[in-house]
Amino acid sequence: MSTELSFQIAARDAGARTGALETPRGTIRTPAFMPVGTAGTVKAMFPETVAATGADILLANTYHLMLRPGAERVAAFGGLHEFMNWGGPILTDSGGFQVMSLAKLRKISEAGVTFQSHIDGSTHELTPESSIEIQCLLGADIQMAFDECTPFPCSEAEARASMDLSMRWAARSKEAFAAQGAAGQALFGIVQGSVYPGLREQSARALLDIGFDGYAVGGLAVGEGQETMLEILGATTPFLPEERPRYLMGVGTPLDIIAAVERGIDMFDCVMPTRSGRHGQAFTWEGKLNLRNAVHAGDERPLDAESSCPAARDYSRAYLHHLFKAGEYLGPMLLSWANVHFYQDLLQRIRTAVAERRFSQFAAETRSRLAGE
Amino acid sequence: MSTELSFQIAARDAGARTGALETPRGTIRTPAFMPVGTAGTVKAMFPETVAATGADILLANTYHLMLRPGAERVAAFGGLHEFMNWGGPILTDSGGFQVMSLAKLRKISEAGVTFQSHIDGSTHELTPESSIEIQCLLGADIQMAFDECTPFPCSEAEARASMDLSMRWAARSKEAFAAQGAAGQALFGIVQGSVYPGLREQSARALLDIGFDGYAVGGLAVGEGQETMLEILGATTPFLPEERPRYLMGVGTPLDIIAAVERGIDMFDCVMPTRSGRHGQAFTWEGKLNLRNAVHAGDERPLDAESSCPAARDYSRAYLHHLFKAGEYLGPMLLSWANVHFYQDLLQRIRTAVAERRFSQFAAETRSRLAGE
Repeated sequence: MSTELSFQIAARDAGARTGALETPRGTIRTPAFMPVGTAGTVKAMFPETVAATGADILLANTYHLMLRPGAERVAAFGGLHEFMNWGGPILTDSGGFQVMSLAKLRKISEAGVTFQSHIDGSTHELTPESSIEIQCLLGADIQMAFDECTPFPCSEAEARASMDLSMRWAARSKEAFAAQGAAGQALFGIVQGSVYPGLREQSARALLDIGFDGYAVGGLAVGEGQETMLEILGATTPFLPEERPRYLMGVGTPLDIIAAVERGIDMFDCVMPTRSGRHGQAFTWEGKLNLRNAVHAGDERPLDAESSCPAARDYSRAYLHHLFKAGEYLGPMLLSWANVHFYQDLLQRIRTAVAERRFSQFAAETRSRLAGE
Repeated sequence: MSTELSFQIAARDAGARTGALETPRGTIRTPAFMPVGTAGTVKAMFPETVAATGADILLANTYHLMLRPGAERVAAFGGLHEFMNWGGPILTDSGGFQVMSLAKLRKISEAGVTFQSHIDGSTHELTPESSIEIQCLLGADIQMAFDECTPFPCSEAEARASMDLSMRWAARSKEAFAAQGAAGQALFGIVQGSVYPGLREQSARALLDIGFDGYAVGGLAVGEGQETMLEILGATTPFLPEERPRYLMGVGTPLDIIAAVERGIDMFDCVMPTRSGRHGQAFTWEGKLNLRNAVHAGDERPLDAESSCPAARDYSRAYLHHLFKAGEYLGPMLLSWANVHFYQDLLQRIRTAVAERRFSQFAAETRSRLAGE
């Protein structure tokens, strides 16, 4: 295990923690939200703009990049940072989740997964070893162990078999990373076990035995609902080491994030701010708005008077409505920017509230403000 | 006629001139290229970025804006500048050309044109009076007389009848503008007459009799070819007053622009840099590149090493190729930016060359560099 990923917790409050994860490419303030740059671009945003919102780290997808433009091509350019013009840290997923949700004709064996590309139908294989190799070619600062993510619902027997397989893959991922990972790079393990607390505990213990730089909770936010997600999350984090970063994968809404921070989570990623933005949905401190709605056609107010983001401040809701009705690029460009800014602002407020030991009050107030979201 | 549109010619060289057109919203350095913001947005660009490329003025389309969001809505927001967050000057076309090329079931009479919207099929009318009314509601700094633009080819008899009608409409446009135009706003007349020099001369003389703040050449670049366009342009500009700005509508390629500047043109607009950019075509100082082409897939070079534009400088051709192959927003965003920057850079080089009395040499060198474009 790399010893270079320093994680310092500066303050704890009401189950939450705030701190800093140090990587050679920069400091990640936690709790952190990672915008998703699936194919090597945070959709409809310039990398400088992403950085200006306050994002310290991006997520990129191994599955997409291995298929196009190919990991070797990215490596030939000196890695993904250079390729996409992003100087800060990058976390890559292992490809496991994306293979399950996007690829065709998947076949899972002890060795790994063979699948057909959703782009051109070509056949590929992902194994713990090849996933780590690809993540190393991409030059990811934080890499993820290769795992299987079970769908919801899933029987306990299926969940157990899948989790056991993922834990064997985690050990192989660790071994591959030990051989190939560069100095300063880190590897996170992923807790699986579906909605079964006993399996989650076993999975966490298995990962701890292997030893990782950080621990992710996977297989949630796949249809089980917020209540179950939080129940399982609350039954999992107690088994994760205090001194290592904890990452809840693929989550979520602003209120999901607040509830997960209350359960000790440090890192998040989600396509929601950018995907919603492309479809005319805005996150604001007054709650969510659908800019396609005719109610905004004559509204001179900015998107969010409380925001310091130019996209939320310098254009009227009526103009944004017009852009979406007219199918103009600028609509998705402005709302993606405003939404990523909102998420970064939310995380900054969370960090400040924890540091000032008023996180419970902040959480209650924010739930009330964003109710109905 | 407004006397507030001051136009000062600072230098003349080899048929070309350079100077400054003063409007209450800012100075337009000439020769000038106006990026096109059809529906109140220069497609895939932030207004700040458009300004940063060096654009002093934008063009917006009366036809599109009258249909969506509607001129009254824009007026309720204090005009198009406020609506679209662009503080500099705006020129609006009259809607005439767009009605001819986009609308369905056009019917032309002495009064004006009735047509069906290409958006929803609803019936609308444009007349010289309503065109000026709409342009005033939009708050355009430079407005255009309402005209008919003949297609190519067009018989001389048809061209004469159409030009005569356009001249009667020009007089009505002037009258409407005199009644409705605000202080500091300007009205340009448009020379028509298809490819017939005699008609072009008659049209220019008719406009001079009416008197405008500036004179545009319309009805070119509609399929007649560059040679004919330049021949007709050369037969037209001698009849336009030296002391007023001259605007060649809808033109064109970099070499079209250079040739038109040689014939005394001061202003241009064209969708080419943004439309090409959205389709993967880049203008560079090495000539045009199609970034979709597989030849760029492994090319580490920036788009244009000679450019000071971040979009042309900070990303490899391979990355741009990847973005277009993957259908990512960032591809059109970067190439639109780079192309508009290229056009503004071209116009700045033209202005400098004229000011330094080496325009012929510049034109020859640039033709050689961009040959095959």
